[in-house]
Amino acid sequence: MPDLLDTLDFARIEATLLAAADAAAAMTLPLFRTALSIDNKLEAGFDPVTEADRGAENAIREIIASAFPDHAIIGEEWGTAGESRLSWIIDPVDGTRAFISGAPVWGTLIGFAVDGVAIAGIMSQPFIGENFIALPGHSSYRRAGVEKPNRASGHASLDGARVFTTTPKLFDTPDLAAKWREIEAATRLQRFGMDCYGYALLAAGHADLVIEPYLNTYDIAALVPIIREAGGAIACWDGSEPTGGGNVVAAASHELLEEALALIA
Amino acid sequence: MPDLLDTLDFARIEATLLAAADAAAAMTLPLFRTALSIDNKLEAGFDPVTEADRGAENAIREIIASAFPDHAIIGEEWGTAGESRLSWIIDPVDGTRAFISGAPVWGTLIGFAVDGVAIAGIMSQPFIGENFIALPGHSSYRRAGVEKPNRASGHASLDGARVFTTTPKLFDTPDLAAKWREIEAATRLQRFGMDCYGYALLAAGHADLVIEPYLNTYDIAALVPIIREAGGAIACWDGSEPTGGGNVVAAASHELLEEALALIA
Repeated sequence: MPDLLDTLDFARIEATLLAAADAAAAMTLPLFRTALSIDNKLEAGFDPVTEADRGAENAIREIIASAFPDHAIIGEEWGTAGESRLSWIIDPVDGTRAFISGAPVWGTLIGFAVDGVAIAGIMSQPFIGENFIALPGHSSYRRAGVEKPNRASGHASLDGARVFTTTPKLFDTPDLAAKWREIEAATRLQRFGMDCYGYALLAAGHADLVIEPYLNTYDIAALVPIIREAGGAIACWDGSEPTGGGNVVAAASHELLEEALALIA
Repeated sequence: MPDLLDTLDFARIEATLLAAADAAAAMTLPLFRTALSIDNKLEAGFDPVTEADRGAENAIREIIASAFPDHAIIGEEWGTAGESRLSWIIDPVDGTRAFISGAPVWGTLIGFAVDGVAIAGIMSQPFIGENFIALPGHSSYRRAGVEKPNRASGHASLDGARVFTTTPKLFDTPDLAAKWREIEAATRLQRFGMDCYGYALLAAGHADLVIEPYLNTYDIAALVPIIREAGGAIACWDGSEPTGGGNVVAAASHELLEEALALIA
């Protein structure tokens, strides 16, 4: 769709991603690592991560709807609004268990997709103060006013790879469990519990492979351009486009993606 | 040993913990998240985490030896130096896999022990810029010039607990694996891959239980006072003092420690 792409104002899309991430942070940070919230939850059914999720998604939706009233918005908490070939895909707090347990490896995810393929996105970790952001032609890391390009490691084989997945429990059938054991045996290092943070680290060159089944579109859309524009590769296990979610592999090179897909398919 | 304790200058011990953590950060941070280091490692056998470990331990040892030349020093990289009832116990980079893969949940650990029981310590995460520090009578969290007391959650039963362990693979015998499955079934949330960071979050009230087998003294000594002075409890699985390492449980309350020990013993 070159005609549609040509009409897009990417400076405005970038500004909207950043403003929406900031607005989300204003809702999430006051609820992160607050013993008070946890006490409240136990005593009165108040759930800090649900509050953070809803407050942040509302804030993000407001900013997007105001900048691009004709675009569709798909969010984890409030579903789909509008119909358009242009859509924004939101997970206000990806990494719920990290958030609940005080670990600074959750993130706010906002992706922008054209015809179901994400081409811009942000992963924001506001406690650390870092943003991983992508637009067509570049993927970058920003913290404390300093910007660096994201560059995937280029690691090209399972041998020696650093692999992330959220938990081995995700591989919850005998067949999936066997595939995970094969990957463990083939790679150099395995880490659990990273959610979106693992994909961001892959884009920045610190991990080589992330494998996760059962993702929703809002878990992965924002991360797709962050990885691709950094030179990484990402696909569903059947090789199809991952923006819509599913079983996903992200890799630091196309060669490694092919090797992982061949093993896991 | 009240006589020996009475002779200790805790202001100087605190200053030494902080100065040593800063000196360690100057060695570790330049090697964290550096694609260059990883390339070097692959091409020339250079290992960034080993360099960080050694450089940081040397820097820490120098500061301790200069402040307290008569004390013993026990470190992960360079073993034991000196003999004394007063000892400093160092892990320059706890969380090697986190360090290698760019995840900011490693830490520099420095403990101070009297007759084998740690009574002061620091866990420093310099990328985020946070210190968890304990001295007799208080455990606190410091970031960006702001100090808050650490206070364990007080959660008193496995039911509803947030439990951390580095990886389920640590439970590597059928008996240990069965114990881990019992804990998983009894608790609310399990997280993997946190190393020292999990204990620090427990002290600060964000996690309720950390269970890990096979720890060395330098993996745990610094964390013992950070947890105890925050109102948490920590012991080996047989109930003994954990400063020396072994199979360890840390809990947000004495009741929860007893319940976990009864299950795992």
